[in-house]
Amino acid sequence: MNQKMGKASVKPDNPVYILNSASVVGTKEGDGPLGLLFDKVGEDDMFGCKTWEEAESSLQKQAVGLALDKAGLVPEDISFIFAGDLLGQSIATSFGISSFQIPLLGMYGACSTCGESLLLGTMAVAGGFADRVLTVTSSHFASAEKEFRFPLEYGNQRPLSATWTVTGSGAFVLSNTEGERSRARITGITTGKIMDYGLKDSMNMGACMAPAACDTIYWNLKDFGRRPSDYDKIITGDLGSIGRQALIDLLNEKDVDIAGQHMDCGIEIYDAKEQDTHAGGSGCGCSAVTLSAYVLKKIEEGTWKRVLFVPTGALLSKTSFNEGQTVPGIAHGLVIESCG
Amino acid sequence: MNQKMGKASVKPDNPVYILNSASVVGTKEGDGPLGLLFDKVGEDDMFGCKTWEEAESSLQKQAVGLALDKAGLVPEDISFIFAGDLLGQSIATSFGISSFQIPLLGMYGACSTCGESLLLGTMAVAGGFADRVLTVTSSHFASAEKEFRFPLEYGNQRPLSATWTVTGSGAFVLSNTEGERSRARITGITTGKIMDYGLKDSMNMGACMAPAACDTIYWNLKDFGRRPSDYDKIITGDLGSIGRQALIDLLNEKDVDIAGQHMDCGIEIYDAKEQDTHAGGSGCGCSAVTLSAYVLKKIEEGTWKRVLFVPTGALLSKTSFNEGQTVPGIAHGLVIESCG
Repeated sequence: MNQKMGKASVKPDNPVYILNSASVVGTKEGDGPLGLLFDKVGEDDMFGCKTWEEAESSLQKQAVGLALDKAGLVPEDISFIFAGDLLGQSIATSFGISSFQIPLLGMYGACSTCGESLLLGTMAVAGGFADRVLTVTSSHFASAEKEFRFPLEYGNQRPLSATWTVTGSGAFVLSNTEGERSRARITGITTGKIMDYGLKDSMNMGACMAPAACDTIYWNLKDFGRRPSDYDKIITGDLGSIGRQALIDLLNEKDVDIAGQHMDCGIEIYDAKEQDTHAGGSGCGCSAVTLSAYVLKKIEEGTWKRVLFVPTGALLSKTSFNEGQTVPGIAHGLVIESCG
Repeated sequence: MNQKMGKASVKPDNPVYILNSASVVGTKEGDGPLGLLFDKVGEDDMFGCKTWEEAESSLQKQAVGLALDKAGLVPEDISFIFAGDLLGQSIATSFGISSFQIPLLGMYGACSTCGESLLLGTMAVAGGFADRVLTVTSSHFASAEKEFRFPLEYGNQRPLSATWTVTGSGAFVLSNTEGERSRARITGITTGKIMDYGLKDSMNMGACMAPAACDTIYWNLKDFGRRPSDYDKIITGDLGSIGRQALIDLLNEKDVDIAGQHMDCGIEIYDAKEQDTHAGGSGCGCSAVTLSAYVLKKIEEGTWKRVLFVPTGALLSKTSFNEGQTVPGIAHGLVIESCG
């Protein structure tokens, strides 16, 4: 039986294996510090398509195809695909993965969707509902700017607290049995709640999401009876440099110090100074491609034995922003350990 | 162990009980044929709020609060809430249910989200990840018109194939143990795939969704080895009168005749002629409030012993429509049986 831990966490009775994974990114991500690690870097950010949205769909399609290939599987081997993106009505997903004809469960958790899909994929596999599932999420700088902020053609200036939406998609094959090439295993999940500190600045999403990351990390440590040092890394999705500081401060107020373990995918993926990305990277694709290309590599190499992976999401839309609503956050946590 | 049935279905080892549920609707739904059955009918469609989006959030909040009350539970009794709506970035959910502070898993499956959330809630409970979960979905006529079509102020004409988005929210408490007041039990799930027949008319969503309903019903019958008459009713979410005929024709082509069992929530909820709703009702709230107020009542009364409940969704956005994309469909199936 899967073991409920405390208020928000579950330890699956049998670990769920990340059989393989894939990352596909745009040119800016290819030029960044992790550039050489991604499976595929596009020649340009249109990926041969006519619209930004189609380009994002193509990212998901390529990531799923590549993850299946790397795992030596075909679509028929997969019971469910858990998928999502940032666009209204998740259209990058709807038009990206339909050709695989895998039963689909669509997710929305803003940029936390990579965590949410891995968490629900883990439930499906560990709960005996599937032998193998796929998860995929994506974001695209240009489709996200159009969806949430201003058309690129305006050339609007961005404050230094703003993050840069990652053009990329990461896909993961989860399985109930350890394959020869399994990259890591998922040994715990912590589901996040909506945290709303009343912030309204959609150009400072790091600060908006930090309370959610704080809450999820706090409960993960409490539920599993762990200290921060029980993890080699505590990895948030896309807080960026401002959100990172807010997170460390908020956890300090609860007498939890993660400064030594903390890493943020949004900070790692770009050279903020050289690449002019201000506070860092963000988006559904940010944590997904960083997990696949960098975090799982470190785990495979044995550099890290156990990490807490916490994708973070800011819950807003153009409409909610224009109607003066706040920007609440949500974050989901996954304990990922080496297979060895 | 939960039993995988065929390609797309699972029979949970232990049934999952619908402990209780609630429905909250707008004035038009209150005036319709099911009006007297809903738990709560708003005095007007603003529900005391300043915007349509806030009104929809308020619907979710009331439905969840009422479902908890009717089940004699408090938010702390619930492990997860599976929730979604039709608005971009699911803002009705984000601002509707945050005050309950229940770990949230956000869903997007267009109008099929009621089915998706019950399906994943069933997985979470039957998989041993939770004793009790909540699911909630909503839609609102005015927020949906603004999101997908034209501002109400334009007073645009609607073709006869168009459906009318239901203003309403339905919430369900699922549990691994049968309570004294349990309304029904979920004994099987069938997860749908994206079905795209190339239709592009967002004013005829019934036709766009019929292939998905056909596929899910076909596989449910095949996976469970059942005939249509093994169900007292086969209930689609919001195909409306045109989609209903398309569904029956499509299944006939596969030598499956459901004409005797079929019912559509979108057809039941309004008196199309008197209420000028053309092809019928639609939206995330349509199947949810009809399930809670009408279908579960018929099951409790013993009129129906076993039904197949298939909420249907049309996967489109303003952007995908304006870019000339098709309107693919998706539908998820739940086998719901009486407790007795």
